[in-house]
Amino acid sequence: MLLYNNSRSGNCYKVRLLAALLEELDVLDRSNRPEVLGDLNPALRVPVLVLDDGRHLAESNAIIDYLAEGTQYLPQDPYTRAQVLSWQFFEQYEHEPNIAVARFLNLFGVDASEEFHKRLHAGGTKALEALERGLEGREFLVGDSYSVADISLYAYTHVADEGGFDLSPYPAIRSWLTRVAAQPGHIPITA
Amino acid sequence: MLLYNNSRSGNCYKVRLLAALLEELDVLDRSNRPEVLGDLNPALRVPVLVLDDGRHLAESNAIIDYLAEGTQYLPQDPYTRAQVLSWQFFEQYEHEPNIAVARFLNLFGVDASEEFHKRLHAGGTKALEALERGLEGREFLVGDSYSVADISLYAYTHVADEGGFDLSPYPAIRSWLTRVAAQPGHIPITA
Repeated sequence: MLLYNNSRSGNCYKVRLLAALLEELDVLDRSNRPEVLGDLNPALRVPVLVLDDGRHLAESNAIIDYLAEGTQYLPQDPYTRAQVLSWQFFEQYEHEPNIAVARFLNLFGVDASEEFHKRLHAGGTKALEALERGLEGREFLVGDSYSVADISLYAYTHVADEGGFDLSPYPAIRSWLTRVAAQPGHIPITA
Repeated sequence: MLLYNNSRSGNCYKVRLLAALLEELDVLDRSNRPEVLGDLNPALRVPVLVLDDGRHLAESNAIIDYLAEGTQYLPQDPYTRAQVLSWQFFEQYEHEPNIAVARFLNLFGVDASEEFHKRLHAGGTKALEALERGLEGREFLVGDSYSVADISLYAYTHVADEGGFDLSPYPAIRSWLTRVAAQPGHIPITA
């Protein structure tokens, strides 16, 4: 399988991290070239996974759920699976558009209005508060074990400081980040 | 089962629409009261589904996938399921935050900066262009039949004009909207 990848993207990191945990997927990096993605993803974004038979799949969370099917990282029970999806949709709606975008602006020195920066900071803070509430008294986001829900939320939370977010008010998030990073087979975003 | 609902929200409409198609779920409307949602959804948003045994589920797309499990509206094949999720994550990331938010500002006369309006219009147009590419030459978004992917994207696309988006440049979207609305058991967003 071939992964169209961007080495700085947390969305692509989700796929590389799960692939490392599963130890069963060769990941080839390709630079982000929207012009080559036209036939693979109507939204022209990475990551895109291309299966050996040429079929392809877009959206980081859809990709990791597909790869995790039948493994310990995606529960079989319908309600528990739905809880995983619930966190993943939360991540794409409330978390990534604020925290990942703020990090992107910082990392690449992109010019943006103060209004936009404020909007990202307020939205990202709201997302971190929700994540903190969701993690209080829990080891992992869903059930009692590490799942793709944790991978989806870990990807940009653990680098939230690069977007100007201070995690010190969130003790449940901080201890969860430590537990995720301690999982056997874990790789950093730079790997 | 009880649905915490908002009658103007397309995200809540997704759940009501699928429930109408399945003809097997009683939907009770509740006004959107964040203060009552604290124990049900860390993100404090509707829709939230409460099962008969008290377990609860947040995020519109996670809810409809849970309800559709085992029906014709959610494919069994893993790759086809992943394609459904891919469109649903696209919806939450690129489509809803622009088109639904622009509609919200218009419907409720919310004050927002010109910069924000421009950002929503540009983002929503990009999402509609991607949706048009995804629908070209197809009857429905995934496989050959109507699925929860169509429900997820229909919810705000069919009222995009209320957000100031003109659908006349998108013939594939327009004919798909007609096909979705012609499905047996279909209900309008106002139902």
